[in-house]
Amino acid sequence: MKNKKSSDIFADVREKHPLVHHITNYVTVNDCANITIATGAAPVMADAPEEVCEMVAVAGALVLNIGTLNKGQVESMILAGGMANDLKIPIVLDPVGAGATRFRTSTALRLLDELRITILKGNPGEIGVLAGAEASVRGVDSGGMAGDPVKIARKFAALSGITVVVSGATDIVTDGKRVLLIGNGHPLMGCISGTGCMAASVTGAFAAVTNDPVMASAAALATFGIAGEKAAAYTHAPYSFKTALFDELAALTPEDLASCAKIVMK
Amino acid sequence: MKNKKSSDIFADVREKHPLVHHITNYVTVNDCANITIATGAAPVMADAPEEVCEMVAVAGALVLNIGTLNKGQVESMILAGGMANDLKIPIVLDPVGAGATRFRTSTALRLLDELRITILKGNPGEIGVLAGAEASVRGVDSGGMAGDPVKIARKFAALSGITVVVSGATDIVTDGKRVLLIGNGHPLMGCISGTGCMAASVTGAFAAVTNDPVMASAAALATFGIAGEKAAAYTHAPYSFKTALFDELAALTPEDLASCAKIVMK
Amino acid sequence: MKNKKSSDIFADVREKHPLVHHITNYVTVNDCANITIATGAAPVMADAPEEVCEMVAVAGALVLNIGTLNKGQVESMILAGGMANDLKIPIVLDPVGAGATRFRTSTALRLLDELRITILKGNPGEIGVLAGAEASVRGVDSGGMAGDPVKIARKFAALSGITVVVSGATDIVTDGKRVLLIGNGHPLMGCISGTGCMAASVTGAFAAVTNDPVMASAAALATFGIAGEKAAAYTHAPYSFKTALFDELAALTPEDLASCAKIVMK
Repeated sequence: MKNKKSSDIFADVREKHPLVHHITNYVTVNDCANITIATGAAPVMADAPEEVCEMVAVAGALVLNIGTLNKGQVESMILAGGMANDLKIPIVLDPVGAGATRFRTSTALRLLDELRITILKGNPGEIGVLAGAEASVRGVDSGGMAGDPVKIARKFAALSGITVVVSGATDIVTDGKRVLLIGNGHPLMGCISGTGCMAASVTGAFAAVTNDPVMASAAALATFGIAGEKAAAYTHAPYSFKTALFDELAALTPEDLASCAKIVMK
Repeated sequence: MKNKKSSDIFADVREKHPLVHHITNYVTVNDCANITIATGAAPVMADAPEEVCEMVAVAGALVLNIGTLNKGQVESMILAGGMANDLKIPIVLDPVGAGATRFRTSTALRLLDELRITILKGNPGEIGVLAGAEASVRGVDSGGMAGDPVKIARKFAALSGITVVVSGATDIVTDGKRVLLIGNGHPLMGCISGTGCMAASVTGAFAAVTNDPVMASAAALATFGIAGEKAAAYTHAPYSFKTALFDELAALTPEDLASCAKIVMK
Repeated sequence: MKNKKSSDIFADVREKHPLVHHITNYVTVNDCANITIATGAAPVMADAPEEVCEMVAVAGALVLNIGTLNKGQVESMILAGGMANDLKIPIVLDPVGAGATRFRTSTALRLLDELRITILKGNPGEIGVLAGAEASVRGVDSGGMAGDPVKIARKFAALSGITVVVSGATDIVTDGKRVLLIGNGHPLMGCISGTGCMAASVTGAFAAVTNDPVMASAAALATFGIAGEKAAAYTHAPYSFKTALFDELAALTPEDLASCAKIVMK
C-alpha cells in the first residue's frame, strides 16, 4: 500500500514537473539543482529579498537550507517562508549544522518559530539539538543523539505539528502520530558531499505534489535511496558513484519505486 | 564559408587563450569555469566592486549572468560593464530568469539600458519578455514566446544594436540584419543544469577574439552543440553525458567545427 | 625517511578525521568539500561573522582562499584567523589571484600581516608578487616569477616565519631553513578548474594532525599528486580525469604514499 502510494507521488512529480524554490548554501547548490532535475522537477535558486516572495509564489515547494547561512539570507528565508505559508506552499527546512554554532542553532529555531515549516529534515545530531535532546554536531556532521531517536522525533513532531525526518541508515519520518521507517540507501551516499542537501531537494519535489508530508518524505527518501542502491551495484568509487547516483535517479521509474521501496510503519 | 570562419575563430580562442571575466550565479559557476577552460580560454570570477574594473580591464570579454542576482552584484555588473564599454571589451549578457520576477526583468532591462551589451543570449521566454513580446518564464525555464521568434529577435536586435541569441533546438543569432540559424546540439543538453550558462561562457570566449559578434555567437553555439552531439553518441545517462560534454569540448578541434557546424543564413 | 613520515601523517588524517574549516570562493567550493572528504578529513564551510570564531574553535585547521573575496568575507577571515591564532590552530592561506588586482594583493598582504599564517600556498606569480619579486598574475593564473623561485620562496619564508609553498610541475615547500621539492602530479591537473584550491584543502587536512607544516605541506602535495598520477594512468579526458582524481585520492593508502612519494630535500 505504502509503495503504491509512494510510486503515485513519484509519478505525479514526473508529470507535474513542479518548481522547487531553493534558498540554500553555495557548497552543494549545483548538486541540489541537478538532483531536482533528475527527480523530475524544476529547480530555481533565488535569495534576493527583492524577489523571493514573487519567486516562491509560483513554486510548488520551498527548500530552506542553512548550510552557509548569513544574516541577509536568513531574512530572505523569513520573507519567502511567510509568503509560502500564506499561499499554503510546503516548506522543507534542512537545518545544516544546527548545534555546531549558536548562529545555526538560533537561526533554525527562529525559522521553526516564525514560519510554519512542513518538513524538518536533519541528521540525528541536528534534530536532537533542535528537539532539546542530548545531541551534538561537529561542523555539518552528526555527533549523534542520546536516547531513542524515534521517540524523540515523534514527540518533537507531535509538539510542533511538523513532519520530522531523521536521516540515517534507516531514515525516520514522523508527524507525531504515524512513524515510517525507510530502509533504502547505501553507505556510499555518506562518502560524498551533499547527499543530505540533495535529499531535502528531492523531498521538496515530492512535497510539492501531495498534501501528505509524511508520505512525501518517505517516498522521496526511498526514491533517492533506491537510486543510491542501483548506483552502488556497479561502482564503489565515491565520485563515479556520485555521477551514477544522478543517472540512476534520472532513469528511475515509479514502477521501480513500487517494487524496491522499503517503507515500513513502526 | 561560415564554417571556415567559425573554425578560424575557434582556432584563435585556442591560440590566444583569452581571459573571460564572469560575474555570475553561484549555482553553475563551476560549470562555467570548466567549460571556459575546455573551450580554450581562461576563466576568472570576480564580483567585488573594489576589483571588477581592474579585472575586466585585462579580460578579453565580460560575461554577466543574473542567475542568482543581488543588489550588490548588480552594482558590480554596472561598474565592470562601464569599464568594458570604455575599453571596447565585448559583453555577453545572460538574463537568467528575466520575466520570472520583476527584479530580474528590471535588472536585465537596466543592464541593457545603462551598458552597451554586445550579445544578449537567452531562452525564448527571456528574450521575448525583454523584447516586449508575449512571453513567459517560470523560475529559470522558458515558458515560450508567442509569435515568430526570428522576427521578434531580429526587430529587437535592429532597435537595440545588440546581437540577440535565442537558444533552442535551433538557435537563432541576429544583429537585425543578418540572421543565422544553428542546428547543432542534442536534447540531453536540456536535461542537466547549467548548459544555458555554459553557452554564454563559450560565447564570451569566442567574442573575445573577433569583432563580429554574430559569427562569434554562431560559432560558439555550433562548437558547444557539436560537443554535445559527440557526447550523446556514447552516453544517454544525463550526468555521464555532462562529463562527456566537457571532455568532448576539450578534445574538439577547429577542423571538427569546420566539418560538423550546422550554421545557415536565413 | 621523508616518505615514512609523510605516510604517517596521512595515516593520522585518516584516523583522526580532522575538521577543516574553509572560508573560500564559491567557484570551487564543492570540489574543496569533496577533496577534503576524499583525503579522510571533514569539511565545513562557514563565513558568517556571527559564527566563524565558534566554528574554527572546533576545527583542526582553517583554510582561507580569496578566490572570490568580498569585504565582508575578508572581515570573517580576520575574525576566524584571530581565533585560530589564539588556539594555535594552523592556517593555510591560498592567495588566489594576488597580483591580478590591488584588492586581492592588498587583502593577501593584510591577512599575512594581521594573522600568523602557518602555510602560504600559491602559484609562482602569486607568491612572487607577495614576496616582492618581479612576478605577474592574469586572472587567477600565474604569469610567472622572475628569478630563482626556490631562493625567493626561501627568503620570504625566512623573513616571515611562514611555510611557503610554490605550486608547479615541481612543487617547492620551504620554511626558510628546509627546502623540499615534490615531484608528484600530472599535467592534466592543470587542465581543470580548482586543483590549486583543492591542494590547499588537502594541505589543511594534513596540517591539522602535525606540528610540522613543512612535512604536512610536502606530504599533502605528494598525496594529491599521486592521486593525479594514478587517475592519469587510465584517462586523459580532463573531466573523466577529474572524477578519477577524487576516486583515486579516496582509494589511496598511506602505503601508496610511502612507496610513490617523490619528496627530496634540496
